[in-house]
Amino acid sequence: MTKILDIIKKNRSYRRFYQEVQIPTEHLHLMVEAARFSPASRNIQPLKYVLINTPEQCATIFPTLAWAGYLTEWPGPEEGERPSGYIIQLLDKNISNTPSCDHGITAQSMLLQAVELGYGGCIIGSIKRETLAGLLNLPENFEILQVIALGKPKETVVVDDLQNNEYKYWREENGTHHVPKRTLDELIFKKI
Amino acid sequence: MTKILDIIKKNRSYRRFYQEVQIPTEHLHLMVEAARFSPASRNIQPLKYVLINTPEQCATIFPTLAWAGYLTEWPGPEEGERPSGYIIQLLDKNISNTPSCDHGITAQSMLLQAVELGYGGCIIGSIKRETLAGLLNLPENFEILQVIALGKPKETVVVDDLQNNEYKYWREENGTHHVPKRTLDELIFKKI
Repeated sequence: MTKILDIIKKNRSYRRFYQEVQIPTEHLHLMVEAARFSPASRNIQPLKYVLINTPEQCATIFPTLAWAGYLTEWPGPEEGERPSGYIIQLLDKNISNTPSCDHGITAQSMLLQAVELGYGGCIIGSIKRETLAGLLNLPENFEILQVIALGKPKETVVVDDLQNNEYKYWREENGTHHVPKRTLDELIFKKI
Repeated sequence: MTKILDIIKKNRSYRRFYQEVQIPTEHLHLMVEAARFSPASRNIQPLKYVLINTPEQCATIFPTLAWAGYLTEWPGPEEGERPSGYIIQLLDKNISNTPSCDHGITAQSMLLQAVELGYGGCIIGSIKRETLAGLLNLPENFEILQVIALGKPKETVVVDDLQNNEYKYWREENGTHHVPKRTLDELIFKKI
């Protein structure tokens, strides 16, 4: 049996993909289904989703996103290693003016579903929001919260114990991506 | 194999528990481990956790929480059906002034891990924060974000299709708890 912790560990933030591996619409629907059955603050459920999975749509979306802020010399994945799908999380302000942290809850559900289906992804918050809203012809009641980039991962991501509050991820010359994570001991404020 | 979607569906917001079923500390550690390996905005990881699992600690925490806002005639779970554990999510403002939506991402990871271990829980945002901070002797750099109440579920929760934007959960006389969820069709803004 696959343990949930194994799936959570396998769900790293991937930024390079086998771009030729497309994501069927029914797989994106399964991800939204995972979001749909997730907890929602006061059960209001103000989030909506735009699903993107054709090469043409992906090429349109890609330039509106910024990649891996700490890798200042890396402009993002090159052609051939770009995401083959996106889920754009919207706040429907006709329903609520705040998502609370629902976009976090649902993003994690969707990513775990993605991992189980053989994909990986990355939550992106650095977005040219006005440009993207224009490309999508979004009505004014929608606010773009974040974008989940998806694809079949084409990179190795390693988790290390974080030391001295040095939390910036970094890359080896061979391309291996390292992510420092605070230890369990550091995360637990009161020991029991 | 347990499918991730099955675990996500099984993870309902439970508010009544077999209070006598205690949660071992190592199980709470597994839940924080699930949080630890979850995505973190810019990888800063400013969240910390207080773990509560003795009857005495639980009795102290319980009065600081408000339950099920829409069930106005229900004051919360009665003695014998209360949570047997809590995870209190803190923002360590020495690390960052905002959690972004990390508390949502990690709450979902912890709840899914809880479900796999045979528990269930509920994310609570309506908290007497000053009182709770005092009880925990929290230093000033910590802000209480939310509390996850945990235990072995003792109620039936049913998900229905939401209609006419009537999103409030409700309870049958026999105690069955109903949660209206927006349909997949309503959640997807642009069809592909």
